[in-house]
Amino acid sequence: MALAIVAPNKSEKELNAWKGIFLELAPDINLQIYPDIQDNALVEVVVLWQHPKNILKEFPNLKLICSMGSGVDHIMSDYVPENIPITRIIDPRLTFSMTNYVVMGILNYHRQFKRYLENKKSKTWDMTQPEIPISVGVMGVGELGGDVLDKVNALGFPCYGYGNSPKNDFRYPYYHGEELQEFLDQVNIVVCLLPLTPKTEGFLNATLFKKFKQGTYLINVARGMHLVEEDLIPAINSGQVSGALLDVFRKEPLEKNHPFWEQEEIMVTPHIASITNYKAAAPQIIANYRNLINQRPLLNEVSTDQGY
Amino acid sequence: MALAIVAPNKSEKELNAWKGIFLELAPDINLQIYPDIQDNALVEVVVLWQHPKNILKEFPNLKLICSMGSGVDHIMSDYVPENIPITRIIDPRLTFSMTNYVVMGILNYHRQFKRYLENKKSKTWDMTQPEIPISVGVMGVGELGGDVLDKVNALGFPCYGYGNSPKNDFRYPYYHGEELQEFLDQVNIVVCLLPLTPKTEGFLNATLFKKFKQGTYLINVARGMHLVEEDLIPAINSGQVSGALLDVFRKEPLEKNHPFWEQEEIMVTPHIASITNYKAAAPQIIANYRNLINQRPLLNEVSTDQGY
Repeated sequence: MALAIVAPNKSEKELNAWKGIFLELAPDINLQIYPDIQDNALVEVVVLWQHPKNILKEFPNLKLICSMGSGVDHIMSDYVPENIPITRIIDPRLTFSMTNYVVMGILNYHRQFKRYLENKKSKTWDMTQPEIPISVGVMGVGELGGDVLDKVNALGFPCYGYGNSPKNDFRYPYYHGEELQEFLDQVNIVVCLLPLTPKTEGFLNATLFKKFKQGTYLINVARGMHLVEEDLIPAINSGQVSGALLDVFRKEPLEKNHPFWEQEEIMVTPHIASITNYKAAAPQIIANYRNLINQRPLLNEVSTDQGY
Repeated sequence: MALAIVAPNKSEKELNAWKGIFLELAPDINLQIYPDIQDNALVEVVVLWQHPKNILKEFPNLKLICSMGSGVDHIMSDYVPENIPITRIIDPRLTFSMTNYVVMGILNYHRQFKRYLENKKSKTWDMTQPEIPISVGVMGVGELGGDVLDKVNALGFPCYGYGNSPKNDFRYPYYHGEELQEFLDQVNIVVCLLPLTPKTEGFLNATLFKKFKQGTYLINVARGMHLVEEDLIPAINSGQVSGALLDVFRKEPLEKNHPFWEQEEIMVTPHIASITNYKAAAPQIIANYRNLINQRPLLNEVSTDQGY
């Protein structure tokens, strides 16, 4: 029996960190790292991050699929053998780091940090217009979105939520489904924290941007597939979108010739808003490996119907 | 009777905003703007911001001195005629804007925003080391410092306070006076929000930096005179200070040939962390003008003994 990590886009350094913690916490587990897997037939547990398409077909004795992170869309969007449980990582530090990233983005926009950076370069002392008044809208108000709203509210900014389904008694003004325009009329920063489903793929597109108040700022920390990338620069050029902070992209790493790198109004970060911390994730995966062997219930198993 | 605004470093745009709001709210007041004052003998109320030294000697009939902002050190450090009351501005928006500036600085350091900006320029996708673990120390825990601690604590970071005097039952671990080293041992971000007094002038100096944990980050949003400016770059070069966010300077505007402009590890902003908002300040000054005439108690009068 073996456990295989299939995460070809992770750096060698990061994979070594995973190896190290497995050696420390579970030296008995036969750990294999793709593509150097000795015998696919031995692999009963896979740990996946951005795995090659259809790779799950190559493991005939699979019994458990673990996402390396909190999302499972990268798994659900590919071939998955039937009746194999899927687990994800739940870690309070994921929420902590996601929220602090989003709050950083909101405050940098509110205080025009970018302008001060430019003024520093030209040694310009310009005190005018120190703040942009903001009202924050979060699309997707699960655990992460709810926490962002709590922290932004504590800082004193007006907060609004939007989601697919109705929510009774949500702690901030909340809009759903058809109430999209009403939601967008309230806000001038839109934070995308939607789950990625067939319904939300491409949700951030030209049609949506036209519904934005003129000059709305966009933060996408959910998934690259939420954004129709070619729609963003025209919306910025027209002034409909004032700028964007993007942490996720359709193809990662973002390609060298991608226009986002050179767009002044778009800030790019390399999918680090909320990163899986191997120190939190590895013990959960090890626990599920043992739960599987001992036929105990799995931690953080995903409902494959809803896709999150 | 006239009211004179003496704020020679404010831009024409800003002074026009002040004129506009006086015209709107109190067209009866004879408003004069320095240096175009018709008759100094008519001036009974002055509104000051970075006024020329000794100018108060030129108003023989002065009855009230109003600071344009929340600080009065710029008044107390110059000649002040005896027994003339001094008032300052208290505005919740000052706290709001100060706190959000400081939180922005803390999060940008925590998430290494500067590194991502550089990586964007070189189109580098580098996911390593996304966060610097931080523990925040605020020196000066009055209304502003206390609010910063509350917001930083809500975001999930360890918080510590330091001040001159003992404080019983402060809501965060608190150190005072001789306990400076103990305080500094806990933190790797130091936020200066001390009042400016003869005791705290030059407090941010080489001796203090030597007591810092290696690589402590400095944020100064109090007064330029708190920092011994020539001590900072050597402390950065030695690695004792990892970088600084500075909003205030000994001489403002910061001179073109000042080395801070070109120092990579120092971020400069033009005294905008907490700016006096004329919309909040003017009504308070107008109210005190009327309180003076009607011999009613003044709002936000400063105790000239303590200097704050």
